[in-house]
Formats: sequence, structure tokens, C-alpha cells
Amino acid sequence: MRIALIGVGMIGGSLVAAWRRAGLVKAVAGYDVDQQALAAATARGLIDRVAPSVAQVVADADLVLVATPVGAMREVFAQLAPALPPDAIVTDVGSTKADVLGYAREALGAAFPRFVAAHPIAGKELPGVQHADGGLFAGKRVIVTPVAETSTGALVRVEGLFGRTGAAVERMDAAEHDRIFAAVSHLPHLLAFALVAAIGSEADGEKKLGYGGAGFRDFTRIAASSPVMWRDVCVANRIALGEELRGYRALLERLQQAVDDGDAATLQQTFELAARLRRQWASAADAQ
Amino acid sequence: MRIALIGVGMIGGSLVAAWRRAGLVKAVAGYDVDQQALAAATARGLIDRVAPSVAQVVADADLVLVATPVGAMREVFAQLAPALPPDAIVTDVGSTKADVLGYAREALGAAFPRFVAAHPIAGKELPGVQHADGGLFAGKRVIVTPVAETSTGALVRVEGLFGRTGAAVERMDAAEHDRIFAAVSHLPHLLAFALVAAIGSEADGEKKLGYGGAGFRDFTRIAASSPVMWRDVCVANRIALGEELRGYRALLERLQQAVDDGDAATLQQTFELAARLRRQWASAADAQ
Repeated sequence: MRIALIGVGMIGGSLVAAWRRAGLVKAVAGYDVDQQALAAATARGLIDRVAPSVAQVVADADLVLVATPVGAMREVFAQLAPALPPDAIVTDVGSTKADVLGYAREALGAAFPRFVAAHPIAGKELPGVQHADGGLFAGKRVIVTPVAETSTGALVRVEGLFGRTGAAVERMDAAEHDRIFAAVSHLPHLLAFALVAAIGSEADGEKKLGYGGAGFRDFTRIAASSPVMWRDVCVANRIALGEELRGYRALLERLQQAVDDGDAATLQQTFELAARLRRQWASAADAQ
Repeated sequence: MRIALIGVGMIGGSLVAAWRRAGLVKAVAGYDVDQQALAAATARGLIDRVAPSVAQVVADADLVLVATPVGAMREVFAQLAPALPPDAIVTDVGSTKADVLGYAREALGAAFPRFVAAHPIAGKELPGVQHADGGLFAGKRVIVTPVAETSTGALVRVEGLFGRTGAAVERMDAAEHDRIFAAVSHLPHLLAFALVAAIGSEADGEKKLGYGGAGFRDFTRIAASSPVMWRDVCVANRIALGEELRGYRALLERLQQAVDDGDAATLQQTFELAARLRRQWASAADAQ
């Protein structure tokens, strides 16, 4: 298969590496606004050819993989649409799905049935193609969010390709996807960024940060993620994320009251619910 | 050395294991309200003798290690004071220090100079003596918070003992300790508990939790911690924690506005500050 990789970063690079490992790749052309990313991907043997534009990268592709931050995708779809070969299939790896489907529908016209929106539930906090890892998806999940127009052929083809990375592929409604990941992914990222920023903005913040232990390390690991990627996710999914954040802030307001009052019972009740659910979660995750 | 271990849990058990490994232990007597913990610690060879009361556990001790949740320490100090041998040294492992020093001062009277308040910056989210690990403290820090009355002999002895676990020992003012750990430890625990509780309380919460990935796992790892221990910490350190939580909530209010407005610039600014600080933090932590 001839791949056009638009957005040469950690996730796109990892997918290409996984497909190369599976023997599925004839050639990969890469496009990115960042020349260093293109050089690094070339040096690592992930891409064979650098293309100077979105239109040129897709010119001879069987599969177009859009792996930019979601905020860039509207423009990417607009640029690739006129150059898309007649049988090429298009997929993406964005963390939000309703907005990406909207951009694709708007730009692709008659080619829209050949777009299969996807979200691999795999990542690491280190951005950049230098951290690409072909084993990233093994044992993980990939959500695909087909719509009524999606061609069954394209859907089955894209599901098969993600399956070859070692991931389990699951279909879901795009709006439901966005609500679920607002809660379990986008909100924790925002909260982790906010904690480090809040402490770092205090007068003695850098000193305080110096005393962070293992709990701090894990809680804030995702605060080292790409600010641009997560800015885009938060804006793209602002309705669902805004609602989750509101619910969370309402609970924090009650916990502030409990802390200020030394109300041990309220704190314990919340902590016990959380610990029970989190331990169940870990058991279920281990069992997978 | 003859140790009296009051509170036979993960941290107390780990310290005893580390000291046994270092060849420092003649005998360990254990007291706990939980009979299963005593049985588990006996079975693992961590304690040699079970004592039926606080008074009886300290009767022949050189070192009394108070390793209960901080909420139980007031009562523990009151019970151990009349039975404390004249040369025994007392230390603790509580996550808050000003309150513990207050309880000790109130109960110990003339023996108060022999109390050295301590906080090992090491832990894991799995409570219980069955998760005790003698290697837990290697390369970690232990903060001791002596006061004017603290005997230099007791201080040096306790610092030496913690040093033998492989930890680096550091002196700090108790109030400063409590402010620092409110920010980098107590607040993240409260926030992680709150996230799991908030999602879990939604109508489709358990379904949402099922889609948590690696970021969710790390962010919420500490939400599996002991609810009773962290309830006590939050109450004991309510002034400093309350202040940190207020500052954090003020930032979340601004981020809520930014999400609702799709204000990418504000989000990016906060995320960039956080990512820069968190990456610096990781480099510094790696260099240690």
C-alpha cells in the first residue's frame, strides 16, 4: 500500500512503523509544516519521500492518513480533496470525531464515503516522530466512528488496517465517542496541565515542584503532552468537555467546603467511591 | 534495635523491611486495630510479636514508629506516653507534620524532645502491609521537621535510621513542609479521587470509565489510595490544602471560560507553561 502521511508526529509515525512491521507498506510520502519532523522521519526510515504540499503528498496514495492536530484538519481536508486519487481511502487519528467528520464532509464531497474517522486509544506524553513506536497499539483499542454515508468497503479496509497494528477495533457513534473521551481523556489532560500551571505560577512554585514524588509524577505525566494538540482537542470538543468540567467543578466546590470545614465524612465518602471504582477499573484493565 | 510498630500498613511494613535488610533489627512488636494486618505482617516475618495495646507494644522498645493514618495519631500519642521507656526515641511517617507535632507535644510532655517528626516521600497506591517493600525508599527523600525542643541526639539517630533505607534525609520547617505537600501531594490526591468520583456518579459513568486509556490510568492511579489515610491528611492539612484548592479552582474557572468560548490562546498559554515546567521537572527528576 502507498501511504500519504499528513502530519509526521508520534502517532502517525507509530502507525506507519506498525504497518511497515506488518509488511503492508510499499511506500510512504510525508507532508508536515515542520521540516525537522520530516528529516527525523526520513532518517528513521519511516517515510520514503517528502512532499512539498498536501496536494502532492496524496497524489499517488492508496491510503491517506491525516495525523495532524485536529485544529489543522479543516484546512488539510480542503487541500487534499481536489488531489485525492479516485480509489484512495482516507482516515485520521484525531482525539475528537464529530468535528473531524464535519470538516471531511464539507471538503470531500463525493469522496466523503471513503473517509473513515478513527481514534487510536494509545499515546504517550512525548510528542514528536522521534518517539514513534510500532508497538504502541498492541493490545490497545481503536475506535472508528462511521456515519450513514461511509462506504462499507472503506470501513472494513480501515478496520482491517488498524487491526494489523495489534489493536482491537470498535465502532461507535461520533457524538458518544466525544462525550466519553471528554470525561476520561480530555478533562484529565486539562486538569493535569492546570495543576502544574497553578503551582508553577505561585511565588514559591518552582521550589514546591521540586518536592513532587511518585504520585505527582503520575498525575502530571500527561501535562508534558503537546500543548497545541490538546488546545485543539479542547476547542474541538468544547461542548462535551465544558459540560464535564462544569460537573467536576461542582464536586470540587463541595470538597472545598468539606476541606475548609474539616468535614471528614464527606471527604471519606467521595474518596471511597473513587477508590472502589478505580480498583475495579484496574482489575478490569488487567484482565483485558 | 527493638522496634514498636504502631499501625502495621504498607509504609510501616516497608520501613521495618528496609531496616531488617540493613541488619538493624533485633525484634519488632506490632500493634494495629486490624487483626488481619497483624496476621499478614507476622506471616511475612515483618513483626515478631503482636501486642494487644499501644502501651504494651512500646513497653520494651528502643524505637517507636508511629505509622497509622494521621487522624489516629492524637490518640496513639496519648496512649503511648505513659508507657514509653525512658530512652526510647519516637518517630512517625505521617504526610502532615504541624498537626502531628502538636499531638506529640500535647501528649509526650518531658519525652517530647525524643520525638522526631518525619515524612518519607515514597509510597504506592496499594495500601496494606501485604504491599510492604523494603526497597521502597531507595533513592527517595525523607523530610524530618525538628522543632526547637527536639533533642539533637534523637534527631541524628532518626536521620541515620532513615538514611539506612537508602533515602536522602532533609530537614525542613513543619509549616513549610505542609504548604509544599498540600500543593504537590495532597491536592493531586484530592483531584484524582474527585475525577473518578465525578465520572462514576454520571448516569453512564461506568461505561465511560471503561474507555480510560494510559493517560487516565496514570492520572487516577493515586485515586486507588487509602480513603481513610487521605481523608485524615486533608483534614489535618486543611488550611494549606484549602488555599491550594482555592487557587486551583480559580484557574479552572478561567479555563472553563476559555473552553466555553473556544478561546484557544488562553488554553495554549496555560498548557505551554505546564508542559515546559513538567518537562523541566522530569529532566531534574531523572538527573537525581
